[in-house]
Amino acid sequence: MLGKLAGWGDTIVALATPPGIGAIGVIRVSGSRSLDVVGRLFVGKDLAAQPSHTLHLGLLKEGDEQLDEAVVALFRAPRSYTGEDVVEISCHGSPVVLERVMQALLRQGTRMARAGEFTQRAFLNGKMDLTQAEAVGDLIASQSASSARAALHTIRGGFSRALKELRERLVSFSALIELELDFSQEDVEFADRTQLYHLISEAEEETSALLASFRLGNVIRNGVSVAIVGKPNAGKSTLLNTLLNENRAIVSEIAGTTRDTIEEVLNIDGILFRLIDTAGIRHHTSDVIEQMGVGRSLEKMEQADIVVYLFDVGSDDAATVGAVREELVAKGKPFLLVGNKVDGLDGSSALAASGRWPQELLISAREGRYIDVLKKRLVDQVMEGAGLGAEGGTIVTNARHYQALKQVGESLETIHRGLDELLPGDLLALDIRHCLHYLGEITGEVTSEERLGYIFSKFCIGK
Amino acid sequence: MLGKLAGWGDTIVALATPPGIGAIGVIRVSGSRSLDVVGRLFVGKDLAAQPSHTLHLGLLKEGDEQLDEAVVALFRAPRSYTGEDVVEISCHGSPVVLERVMQALLRQGTRMARAGEFTQRAFLNGKMDLTQAEAVGDLIASQSASSARAALHTIRGGFSRALKELRERLVSFSALIELELDFSQEDVEFADRTQLYHLISEAEEETSALLASFRLGNVIRNGVSVAIVGKPNAGKSTLLNTLLNENRAIVSEIAGTTRDTIEEVLNIDGILFRLIDTAGIRHHTSDVIEQMGVGRSLEKMEQADIVVYLFDVGSDDAATVGAVREELVAKGKPFLLVGNKVDGLDGSSALAASGRWPQELLISAREGRYIDVLKKRLVDQVMEGAGLGAEGGTIVTNARHYQALKQVGESLETIHRGLDELLPGDLLALDIRHCLHYLGEITGEVTSEERLGYIFSKFCIGK
Repeated sequence: MLGKLAGWGDTIVALATPPGIGAIGVIRVSGSRSLDVVGRLFVGKDLAAQPSHTLHLGLLKEGDEQLDEAVVALFRAPRSYTGEDVVEISCHGSPVVLERVMQALLRQGTRMARAGEFTQRAFLNGKMDLTQAEAVGDLIASQSASSARAALHTIRGGFSRALKELRERLVSFSALIELELDFSQEDVEFADRTQLYHLISEAEEETSALLASFRLGNVIRNGVSVAIVGKPNAGKSTLLNTLLNENRAIVSEIAGTTRDTIEEVLNIDGILFRLIDTAGIRHHTSDVIEQMGVGRSLEKMEQADIVVYLFDVGSDDAATVGAVREELVAKGKPFLLVGNKVDGLDGSSALAASGRWPQELLISAREGRYIDVLKKRLVDQVMEGAGLGAEGGTIVTNARHYQALKQVGESLETIHRGLDELLPGDLLALDIRHCLHYLGEITGEVTSEERLGYIFSKFCIGK
Repeated sequence: MLGKLAGWGDTIVALATPPGIGAIGVIRVSGSRSLDVVGRLFVGKDLAAQPSHTLHLGLLKEGDEQLDEAVVALFRAPRSYTGEDVVEISCHGSPVVLERVMQALLRQGTRMARAGEFTQRAFLNGKMDLTQAEAVGDLIASQSASSARAALHTIRGGFSRALKELRERLVSFSALIELELDFSQEDVEFADRTQLYHLISEAEEETSALLASFRLGNVIRNGVSVAIVGKPNAGKSTLLNTLLNENRAIVSEIAGTTRDTIEEVLNIDGILFRLIDTAGIRHHTSDVIEQMGVGRSLEKMEQADIVVYLFDVGSDDAATVGAVREELVAKGKPFLLVGNKVDGLDGSSALAASGRWPQELLISAREGRYIDVLKKRLVDQVMEGAGLGAEGGTIVTNARHYQALKQVGESLETIHRGLDELLPGDLLALDIRHCLHYLGEITGEVTSEERLGYIFSKFCIGK
């Protein structure tokens, strides 16, 4: 654990709610002087005499100047977010009112909190480990249900538990090594060699699973890029509009922040799909793709995580589509080959089409038919690609954790090799210490002030 | 009081904090089922068993789906904002998280609150009168300390008290009228005629004072328009920049919402000054004003509440400035005649200048000298113009109240005339009833559902 940071003893204040006009705005105060400072402005009750986890309505007043009628929420140390005394003041949601109250608090000897300082204090006071603290930032920044879900899982200690298990395995392993050393002096057979191998393999497996989950974690955090491609007139724009229009309808009033990018973002079952270079595909593709399966159009798909290749069930023949499929398979990129315009077929042609392309999904972009199936297949592609089901336990979403886990994995390999090479126990013990160090970096047991500063600087002020 | 409105029995929800990303976002729930509805999502405690004004940390969960870790604040009827059971949920401030929690609440059988519906319920439940309810909206929308102060004064019942006094006078008056009627039947001298006159005059005076305060109220609510005019090279742009730059510095981080208009808005002692048509004055004035005091330039000032006329102490003579002063006085508009460029004068010239223009304020816009005095004079102009000191009691800021007060004033005049014309007591009583009706309209004792709907529709959702 670190020594305390600069300004540790200060009582800090910040606006905890987004800027702008709302029904209420919340100012958060944390530190040993919180109750005293707010109490000096609060008329009606002696806040210092009130129990934790209680709410109090009163007038905020500085000298003769009335500032606001507000509700004050008290959280006494250590039963608070930061682990210190915390007071949250719910004011009327006017920037002017909030500014006035904030200025009055500052004049009482508090200071503005730095970005993420509340959460940093929570971490330093042992209220959460570093993975949980970082997940708070991720949760606030989450743009889809799945990223919110993953962050909440980590906040609630899911990732920490997985790491703890890994750590415990390593500590057991270390104990066995020492046992081995004892036995070696007495020149006894290594009865537990198999157990050592078993332990290290399990640890390696767990690390690999966590590392693998980062692919899904990345997808969850950043979204999946999808390219809809195909010959001119295959119905790409129509499909795009059908997909987008349906989604527009579920954008609620409070999600207004993403409105300006919504045109290229699809949220399906809580996973964000980003339609990359859509404008390009919509307007310039027709002169790029001269025929299906031409190399140049495939190059265009390189930047996508998933390719949706649209063909026309009315005008394309089985051979061409088969050739496209082969090329897509050869590319090794996840794809969906989709036949469009089933609405243009009569009964017997439709039957013939489904016979001709038994593997492919046939849809009508214009009439919105089988679009649900297409969406489900997109989600399936993501889950399969990540090698995980939707509710598949801990998912690594944070690049810093991924990097540290990779180092954990490498040091496990080193230990493994050491075992193979019959390395002396004291050297193995050193490798284990390295491995434990990397694990400690993830949870924050081993970290530098500088690194902490960097991590929390990405937070918003007030958190 | 009205009958209850449509959807009265519903439990309503809304986001109470501004949209966007913040450390926390608050969802407000009000209605008889609040505790039940939130309780069904809240894991860990039986909320229904908890006392009012308490805070509870827990997991929000719908079925197996974890939604957020949140702090729930309980306010039991009638000790809540609306007078009903209210639950405020402090979630992590991500639009996605808030949306998910909101949707879960809606699925539990609540509905989205209409704009201002929480405050409307507070009014209908007798937690506040209509002037107070309207002031909540004004406070949230307030753009300066003085407008926030005036709104808070009204929220805390200041205006209601003034009206109550007016009302009590009228009721006493009405009692005297009835006494007079009794006496008249017995053919007795009207001993209390003087008292009647006294009462009605007092009521008229009070109404006039309130009506007069609307000018300041309007200023406080909407700001004061100021035109800085003068000959080319008098230093208008320099003065403007000096005023604006000083103000820019006090714009804090959380007041960011007004940043795009700050260039033309000055906040002095909590009063907003709007520099009207500044661009025009800055760029086009030089060819409009050919010489000081020309009629055309004065026409340009028509739209301003206050005119700041800048002259050059180095190059303008006493006679010209005197002529300008006369013209400004003749216009009847509040003005400040200000001599600029005292920095260009040596000691003896400066002395001569202050002798030449003993009435005018002499400044240096370039060096920022005496700008504080100029600001103070601007504030004084506003206060004098409104006939009120800065802390002058109740200030009418609301146009609806002003209109109703005007009708109160007119009906008081009618009563006054009736007294003069020796109108029979029963007719006077009728006029009094009219007057009381208009007073009731202000406080909401007499109002229509339609009018209420209009008033609250201007609120934000969540208040």
